[in-house]
Amino acid sequence: MMGKIACANVLSDLYAMGVTECDNMLMLLGVSTKMTEKERDVVIPLIMRGFKDSALEAGTTVTGGQTVVNPWCTIGGVATTVCQPNEYIVPDNAVVGDVAVNAHQWLDQPERWNRIKLVVSEEDVRKAYHRAMDSMARLNRIASRLMHKYNAHGATDVTGFGLLGHAQTLASHQKNEVSFVIHNLPVIAKMAAVAKACGNMFQLLQGHSAETSGGLLICLPREQAAAYCKDIEKQEGYQAWIIGIVEKGNRTARIIDKPRVIEVPAKE
Amino acid sequence: MMGKIACANVLSDLYAMGVTECDNMLMLLGVSTKMTEKERDVVIPLIMRGFKDSALEAGTTVTGGQTVVNPWCTIGGVATTVCQPNEYIVPDNAVVGDVAVNAHQWLDQPERWNRIKLVVSEEDVRKAYHRAMDSMARLNRIASRLMHKYNAHGATDVTGFGLLGHAQTLASHQKNEVSFVIHNLPVIAKMAAVAKACGNMFQLLQGHSAETSGGLLICLPREQAAAYCKDIEKQEGYQAWIIGIVEKGNRTARIIDKPRVIEVPAKE
Repeated sequence: MMGKIACANVLSDLYAMGVTECDNMLMLLGVSTKMTEKERDVVIPLIMRGFKDSALEAGTTVTGGQTVVNPWCTIGGVATTVCQPNEYIVPDNAVVGDVAVNAHQWLDQPERWNRIKLVVSEEDVRKAYHRAMDSMARLNRIASRLMHKYNAHGATDVTGFGLLGHAQTLASHQKNEVSFVIHNLPVIAKMAAVAKACGNMFQLLQGHSAETSGGLLICLPREQAAAYCKDIEKQEGYQAWIIGIVEKGNRTARIIDKPRVIEVPAKE
Repeated sequence: MMGKIACANVLSDLYAMGVTECDNMLMLLGVSTKMTEKERDVVIPLIMRGFKDSALEAGTTVTGGQTVVNPWCTIGGVATTVCQPNEYIVPDNAVVGDVAVNAHQWLDQPERWNRIKLVVSEEDVRKAYHRAMDSMARLNRIASRLMHKYNAHGATDVTGFGLLGHAQTLASHQKNEVSFVIHNLPVIAKMAAVAKACGNMFQLLQGHSAETSGGLLICLPREQAAAYCKDIEKQEGYQAWIIGIVEKGNRTARIIDKPRVIEVPAKE
């Protein structure tokens, strides 16, 4: 699963640009110096297979890469595509009245059990964890393809800086004088309560919860957004949500004071 | 210097294929968790500048990359080029009678001072160290360009597995039933004596001494090799050497029992 998530994360940068085909990938692997030989022989092939499987799912292949030893076990890579200007979408063209669609959900790490056991069951956490893993391992490829169909004005993938962090970066790169205002926060079931019980340490409801490989945040013409969400659900079986609006502004992004939390079902 | 060597190493894989132009590069940087904030602010920009300077020297630019934190400070990258089949040389076409040219020298790490101070002065080691650094930071670009001019049949860059290790890999990939036999070993001045004094721990004279970013090992038609060496010396001011021969064989590489050691001058 670690390999799949890493591969999805690498590809996500292409998908956020509306590039749906990847010519080839490199895998960069750091084998931990702390692993025993046996651990290494079991764990590393699993990670490599996950990465390759995910590449295959994306219709591409891993043609090379490099392996090093390192105190931490690391996995990453590079995705390369050669394409024409009409095949990619430069993410700088949001216009007033666009809405922002979050084409996957994002997630919180289930830990700090002592604090949270009052608000959720172990079962809830297990389900949420699987939903999160599943979500991160998923490719943003269909989301990317639909960006062309519904005339997206730009997108970013949501990863380490959380939804708001990436929204701010996207906003700062806009050609037009616009800002993003986020009204709705899709959160995996029960995790909003967990976040509160943890004294808000992950800043989930402030939009700073990190994801290793999250969904796409896409700016679309208002009249196309609902159709986009419907289409992605039909094709993927997973929901997307309209989470905000593009206003006239000075290229910033913010979440309103009391955003509506959309509960995303956890995985059975 | 660390950044330059890393960049030269990344580009070297293209140059070994006879690809002399790089379209763009990514830089992958691991900032050490053990660095103080001050160390980080001094060291990391130097490494990044070295990498970028080297890319500029190669006529390309660093268009992106990723930075992570890691226990070890690491630097690496990716070099990408899109080219036509006539622009690269697949390294599988050595034929009997080819000779192997080593278009740079390789090196040994100067350490284990107590053992070696009997055979070399501190000054010798300092000079050898600078020659080694200088050599590793150099680009194999001219060497790559001349591969086309002199009809090279294939090449590899010499890095972590040492001269013999990379020669063996190159030999194993040949279309024809050939083997490589290495007669001459270019070694930085005094370092052969150092290797012996160290009880041969680096296996320098066995061809296993690692280089972070070494030269190219190139298979050329016998009648072209001397001209190749002359041309590279004229253009670069550094020597290249004919170090072996391609024989009929079962795709292996070896160094003869008592190879001639070519002393490469250390840096003044």
